[in-house]
Amino acid sequence: MSKELGLLLDKVRERKPLVHHITNYVTVNDCANITLAVGASPVMADDICEAADITAIADALVINIGTLNERTILSMIASGKAANAKGVPVVLDPVGAGASKFRNDTAKRIIDEVKLSVLRGNISEIKFMADLGSETKGVDASESDMENTDDAGQIAKNLAKKLGCVVVISGAVDTISDGNEIAYVENGHAMLSGLTGTGCMCSSLIGAFCGSSPENIFAATTAAMACMGVAGEDAYKTITQKSQNNQRKQGSFHVALRDAISSMDGEYLQTQVKIGGVRFA
Amino acid sequence: MSKELGLLLDKVRERKPLVHHITNYVTVNDCANITLAVGASPVMADDICEAADITAIADALVINIGTLNERTILSMIASGKAANAKGVPVVLDPVGAGASKFRNDTAKRIIDEVKLSVLRGNISEIKFMADLGSETKGVDASESDMENTDDAGQIAKNLAKKLGCVVVISGAVDTISDGNEIAYVENGHAMLSGLTGTGCMCSSLIGAFCGSSPENIFAATTAAMACMGVAGEDAYKTITQKSQNNQRKQGSFHVALRDAISSMDGEYLQTQVKIGGVRFA
Amino acid sequence: MSKELGLLLDKVRERKPLVHHITNYVTVNDCANITLAVGASPVMADDICEAADITAIADALVINIGTLNERTILSMIASGKAANAKGVPVVLDPVGAGASKFRNDTAKRIIDEVKLSVLRGNISEIKFMADLGSETKGVDASESDMENTDDAGQIAKNLAKKLGCVVVISGAVDTISDGNEIAYVENGHAMLSGLTGTGCMCSSLIGAFCGSSPENIFAATTAAMACMGVAGEDAYKTITQKSQNNQRKQGSFHVALRDAISSMDGEYLQTQVKIGGVRFA
Repeated sequence: MSKELGLLLDKVRERKPLVHHITNYVTVNDCANITLAVGASPVMADDICEAADITAIADALVINIGTLNERTILSMIASGKAANAKGVPVVLDPVGAGASKFRNDTAKRIIDEVKLSVLRGNISEIKFMADLGSETKGVDASESDMENTDDAGQIAKNLAKKLGCVVVISGAVDTISDGNEIAYVENGHAMLSGLTGTGCMCSSLIGAFCGSSPENIFAATTAAMACMGVAGEDAYKTITQKSQNNQRKQGSFHVALRDAISSMDGEYLQTQVKIGGVRFA
Repeated sequence: MSKELGLLLDKVRERKPLVHHITNYVTVNDCANITLAVGASPVMADDICEAADITAIADALVINIGTLNERTILSMIASGKAANAKGVPVVLDPVGAGASKFRNDTAKRIIDEVKLSVLRGNISEIKFMADLGSETKGVDASESDMENTDDAGQIAKNLAKKLGCVVVISGAVDTISDGNEIAYVENGHAMLSGLTGTGCMCSSLIGAFCGSSPENIFAATTAAMACMGVAGEDAYKTITQKSQNNQRKQGSFHVALRDAISSMDGEYLQTQVKIGGVRFA
Repeated sequence: MSKELGLLLDKVRERKPLVHHITNYVTVNDCANITLAVGASPVMADDICEAADITAIADALVINIGTLNERTILSMIASGKAANAKGVPVVLDPVGAGASKFRNDTAKRIIDEVKLSVLRGNISEIKFMADLGSETKGVDASESDMENTDDAGQIAKNLAKKLGCVVVISGAVDTISDGNEIAYVENGHAMLSGLTGTGCMCSSLIGAFCGSSPENIFAATTAAMACMGVAGEDAYKTITQKSQNNQRKQGSFHVALRDAISSMDGEYLQTQVKIGGVRFA
């Protein structure tokens, strides 16, 4: 199984999928760079005059509602439909779902009109999407939501079944379900939550992995999450090797994280990945 | 006094205020990361359909007109009014005020319709805001304006009195006034002016400090400016320790600046801060 | 000749030209920072209410269609015309031209309505602009286009003659022509293509060099491309000095690239530049 995850990374580098993003302007540069770092090719285009055309030449579509605005909602829907028509995998990152009626309505509209391959969010966002009620505080997961993650597997599984897609709940442990099986990725580091855009970058990685392995969305998504988790561990090791007093060096961690993704190959990934819970394959 | 500034930093990390930004797309990633680095939580949302709703759950609002457009002006006003209604501190960064009629009109409109807690700009921007006439060249302070900063304290004090808010003039020495007292923060390094977004990041830090200490806006603002100044000094030390010939290594300085903010605690800040002129407390 | 290129870099630092960008939100932070790193001053403004006013106080205008939208096309045209009226050099970066009808139409509209000083793209984009037919895959050059670069010089020369401007084809070797002469800059490193925004940053550098030397657009453009190429080589040297196993450390390379530009002076540039083919002066 961990060997399969490694092979999926090698496949990204071999197939160089084109990943179309309609995303927020806060973390877009990191999304583009992480897509290149993992071996795929990013393209960002959000105008209604071209969104669907760009999706039609892409291998995956990533929709991220982080800095949602009325203009780009239409592009998200149009691109989502173009992707569905062509069989291009669609990843939705419902950033901040639960924090405003506008985000809630838009997230709901997207899942009503577009068939997703993967939905990825933090526990607050996914709980909102699951209609379980949640307390979203801005774009970070609320602490009360994070404390009760025992049932994350069940939430992910139920929502995956309901939406007919893979659901990822990012956190200290990442929970991934396709509605039947549940994988828990135990890699990662706490510093990932102190850097903006690590969630968005996960969604870009999922786009890259699904774009090169559309026949195996569950494994591809798990490999993408493992890739980020292992990179987080490596980045922390890198900055602690350089100095002893650096538990919170955000800038160096950011650089080291991108270094880790761009240096990683499948063989290394499979030696580092820690999958717990129900095995997915 | 310097002890008080240190305690204010510890308070940011303890209270983790949510800082709503309506800001420019040039430096927004740095604003989000610096907000996280100092221990607060950023949220960026600029659509009129949600701006006021997001402000209503935030602890501070930062309005930055760096890449102003007609769509977001309405959101700035709506969020500003929502903040005023809820007693949420509002920070205005009038980027490039003086450089175009559009920016001038917008900056004026905001101060007419929204009650500010803090106004922060460079000397050219603040002189424009004070209607003293100024020669703004793009978004950086003009050299003729920078040469005559002896009267910065008086300009800040008068404008603070006029607007009923704290006014900050960023520069080699940062001048901060609440209309009665004037604080001069003498920390900082010349390399800060060779990096884009250091002004915007100051405004984000002010948002974080005011969001966690709304009862003491003048001290909170001074602490935020001191935090950036000390971080600039530390970043320069870090890059010069690594090599001797590096006076202008912009990339490394940028990384080291974020490292310095994320590593800083109140005790360290209070040992490093240099406050001159009229003491504020 | 290489001495002339060095002097042109010193001129940027001496004259500090203001470079107005109407550009994409993916790489805009890098564009602003690289403009500062080379010694110029960036200003980003894309609203129709101020675009032409900002251009009127600028020394160069860079138009980049990376994340094109209907709102900013009008600003690009208005700023382009204001630049033409004032004799301000205009640089066009037709990101992704060939990838969608919307981009194609817009790129054509800009060259119809605005007189360019410099057009810079990868081989796929420039072939599209030359109406030679091309296979653009997203925003990166397609591999089939890259394999046939022997005729890049001829393509650049013909298009330069047709448009009456300098044309740059970025690649492993950069090809630059003013319609009469062709310069080939042989500096650079493969890692530049694994980092988002290196093309956009080249266009910003061209803006900075042309803004300070508008009387010599061909040499200024060549110097800008040489500056980026040499910085790429230096950045690779820096990261390989730090560790042996780092051929793909994207984050460190990014930081080292900015360091190299900000540290470079004219004397160093002229010792490093490798110009082949027809000499331009």
